Amino acid sequence: MTHIVAIGGSDAGISAALRARELDPTVEVTVVVADAYPNYSICGIPYFFSGDVKPWQSLAHRTHAELEATGMRLRLDTLATGIDVAGQRLSIRDQHGREEQLSYDELIVGTGALPAHAGITGLDTLGPDDGLHVIHSMGDTFALQRQLEEQNPGSAIIIGAGYVGLEMAEAFTARGMHVLVLQRGPEVLSTLDPELSGLVRTELEDHDVLVHTGTTVHTVEKTAEGLIVRGTRNGQPVTHTAQLVLAVVGVRPNTTLLEQAGATLGPGRAVVVDEQMRTGLPHVFAAGDGVITHHRLLGLTYLPLGTTAHKQGRVAGENALGGTARFAGSVGTQVVKVFDLVASRTGLREDEAIAAGYRPATTQIAADDHKRYYPGAQPISIRITGDAQSGLLLGAQLVGRLGTETAKRVDTYATALFAGLTVEQISDLDLSYTPPLGSPWDAVHVATQAWSRTHTPAGVLA
Amino acid sequence: MTHIVAIGGSDAGISAALRARELDPTVEVTVVVADAYPNYSICGIPYFFSGDVKPWQSLAHRTHAELEATGMRLRLDTLATGIDVAGQRLSIRDQHGREEQLSYDELIVGTGALPAHAGITGLDTLGPDDGLHVIHSMGDTFALQRQLEEQNPGSAIIIGAGYVGLEMAEAFTARGMHVLVLQRGPEVLSTLDPELSGLVRTELEDHDVLVHTGTTVHTVEKTAEGLIVRGTRNGQPVTHTAQLVLAVVGVRPNTTLLEQAGATLGPGRAVVVDEQMRTGLPHVFAAGDGVITHHRLLGLTYLPLGTTAHKQGRVAGENALGGTARFAGSVGTQVVKVFDLVASRTGLREDEAIAAGYRPATTQIAADDHKRYYPGAQPISIRITGDAQSGLLLGAQLVGRLGTETAKRVDTYATALFAGLTVEQISDLDLSYTPPLGSPWDAVHVATQAWSRTHTPAGVLA
Repeated sequence: MTHIVAIGGSDAGISAALRARELDPTVEVTVVVADAYPNYSICGIPYFFSGDVKPWQSLAHRTHAELEATGMRLRLDTLATGIDVAGQRLSIRDQHGREEQLSYDELIVGTGALPAHAGITGLDTLGPDDGLHVIHSMGDTFALQRQLEEQNPGSAIIIGAGYVGLEMAEAFTARGMHVLVLQRGPEVLSTLDPELSGLVRTELEDHDVLVHTGTTVHTVEKTAEGLIVRGTRNGQPVTHTAQLVLAVVGVRPNTTLLEQAGATLGPGRAVVVDEQMRTGLPHVFAAGDGVITHHRLLGLTYLPLGTTAHKQGRVAGENALGGTARFAGSVGTQVVKVFDLVASRTGLREDEAIAAGYRPATTQIAADDHKRYYPGAQPISIRITGDAQSGLLLGAQLVGRLGTETAKRVDTYATALFAGLTVEQISDLDLSYTPPLGSPWDAVHVATQAWSRTHTPAGVLA
Repeated sequence: MTHIVAIGGSDAGISAALRARELDPTVEVTVVVADAYPNYSICGIPYFFSGDVKPWQSLAHRTHAELEATGMRLRLDTLATGIDVAGQRLSIRDQHGREEQLSYDELIVGTGALPAHAGITGLDTLGPDDGLHVIHSMGDTFALQRQLEEQNPGSAIIIGAGYVGLEMAEAFTARGMHVLVLQRGPEVLSTLDPELSGLVRTELEDHDVLVHTGTTVHTVEKTAEGLIVRGTRNGQPVTHTAQLVLAVVGVRPNTTLLEQAGATLGPGRAVVVDEQMRTGLPHVFAAGDGVITHHRLLGLTYLPLGTTAHKQGRVAGENALGGTARFAGSVGTQVVKVFDLVASRTGLREDEAIAAGYRPATTQIAADDHKRYYPGAQPISIRITGDAQSGLLLGAQLVGRLGTETAKRVDTYATALFAGLTVEQISDLDLSYTPPLGSPWDAVHVATQAWSRTHTPAGVLA
């Protein structure tokens, strides 16, 4: 009987295991999980702290029992410590220190990523007991929750204004805490152009979150008064003190296991895999935040996202059974809710497109989500980046209020990117319309029409 | 100086005029409008009656002044009575009976559609003063409003459970009226499969709208007691009486002018145009509800929709200036809000696909709009129709509650249809995810994955 072993209880490992069991209910599948919380929605943790989600157990995509009901076997609290590629054996160690060797026919590595330190002194030595937190696992979650319950701190410093940083700023605010967000770049959410991320910053400030951009943190130290965060803001030294500091400054791929087994590293020092999620090591697949991303516009890159991990894991699970599935590629679609605002993007921004060799041009408009005569219409701000030479869509960024269907409007652009449509063709799309929910020319069209007016003015009547 | 004359003050005519003026601000553009209300949103009329929109003037996409500010000339309350194709002259008659000839270089006909009678005796002879209404123009709107204000009727009968019928059922209900909807077919909203339209019927009934399906109306008569509607329900004679009857049983293309000028009629007895909106008559374009529709899956059909009229009008306006724009084709995307439910479709249903020569197969699922652990998650019911042979997506139908982004989720399928994607490829799309607004596998994916599981079970590991 074929034995598939997956390492990792998060999106990639579990998706692979589920897919294998779905396709062949006779295959034996073992998932090695480092903690006791397989298949938890790490993306949902901020909503546990905001109080929207309770109890924490409901963050599980599937319960332990549901996973086992699929026929997979889970080895919890167990670390994968080494791969014997030639012998097709995985070394593991459980929480009692017991070592064991698992024979496999096919191995799928989904060890994910680890919190980055971004060169900040202290992040590697301080921990939850000192008041310094990351949000990367259920263990991190429990540790932060413990401090919140025991000390009930009135304020927090968040280092990093990316998705998780802003979601946690909202969560802490919802708990009545004062929040200071420190961001290295000139604006929050560096994944968006400042013209749009500025709207997100305003939303944070409207909810009394203090945002300090242009602030580089150098050290976090523990003192008798609490944690001291030192850095520079626009070149001037700054110091902030808090009992609770959350560091969310990105991730780095967790590749130790595969590196030691001889795998190759690529962009972002992530493990190189082909589109079938093969590492090149015989019978060893890898997927998720530990591997490079095939991007339909960029080729190989590193862009760790849960959606991608699910898809890659599914491909790996299928191919471990002898399939020939291919990961169709990311276009970098992302969305975040920040208080009552929704910010999303797909594809490339202008600077990214230039770096990738395109000839981008960008236009921004604001268009109502639905006919203004119907109550509740609100503008969605949309930036379209297209290639001035080929006319192809390269990317779109959207910011709108909750209720404007901004999250699913970005999907229209993501689908167009996937299909390789031109900006002009998007203006031709047959999109839905009813006055309470759209316009005859949808906001999606209004944005691409504006791009065409600006960047292909000649052609039409030539 | 070039003189472009457009006939029709609704979507097609105004879009054509706007596009011509946008591309060439020196061109002279005259729009001949049968009434005094150019560029009104006819789709918005139900929301005037529900009280959501006031005053009625806000239903104008653009005010008279805004239209004139674009440089176009409007001839209001003026009928186009004949086209002299060889002489490039249009005969018109104003409300005082004055006749005139307008010379044109290029003519764009957007005379739209007229309410159908569907073989019901009385619809052609009774009118607003008798209590029998249609909703097709601002004149119709004022007439209905007059009866509502003067008689304050406690109930209404609506013949026809299409989009406008259901929107008006909601509007009358919002006014506190009792509503009986009579529908010929076995379910409301015949554009959806009954598995989904049944959800819409339940929503109507939950709001105390009485729905009688399987009811064919034969006659509407005026008597001393009011209007008597006679017909059969499942073969048995039925009679209903009301002071107010609204007949919304579809439309037929208004083609008299072009027929007399020698144009050809096609599907639905609509005027045949090519993708450039040329009628074949020299210097005569046509667009909107009076012409056939180029459909990307069906070829030539008749599917009058406001979104299509806007696009066709824009193409006609561009080409009247010597352009070579093409209408890229409809995929039949439609959406309606009925109370708190949103029902949408794009592409073909199974029966339509069979008639068109495809080999369709259909799967239905329900998937949450966002992660269930985040408050407010609600299921969206989705039916996917794909071609069992080619694997191509043929159509999608979605019903979800307001707030589930159902209207813009159908757009992902519409974009996929436009681009000719397979059902399998939709499962590969990089769609947005954040727990309050989606899932790692979006409902859009869950539906296509279910289709693939059911209809392409073999291939994967072959």
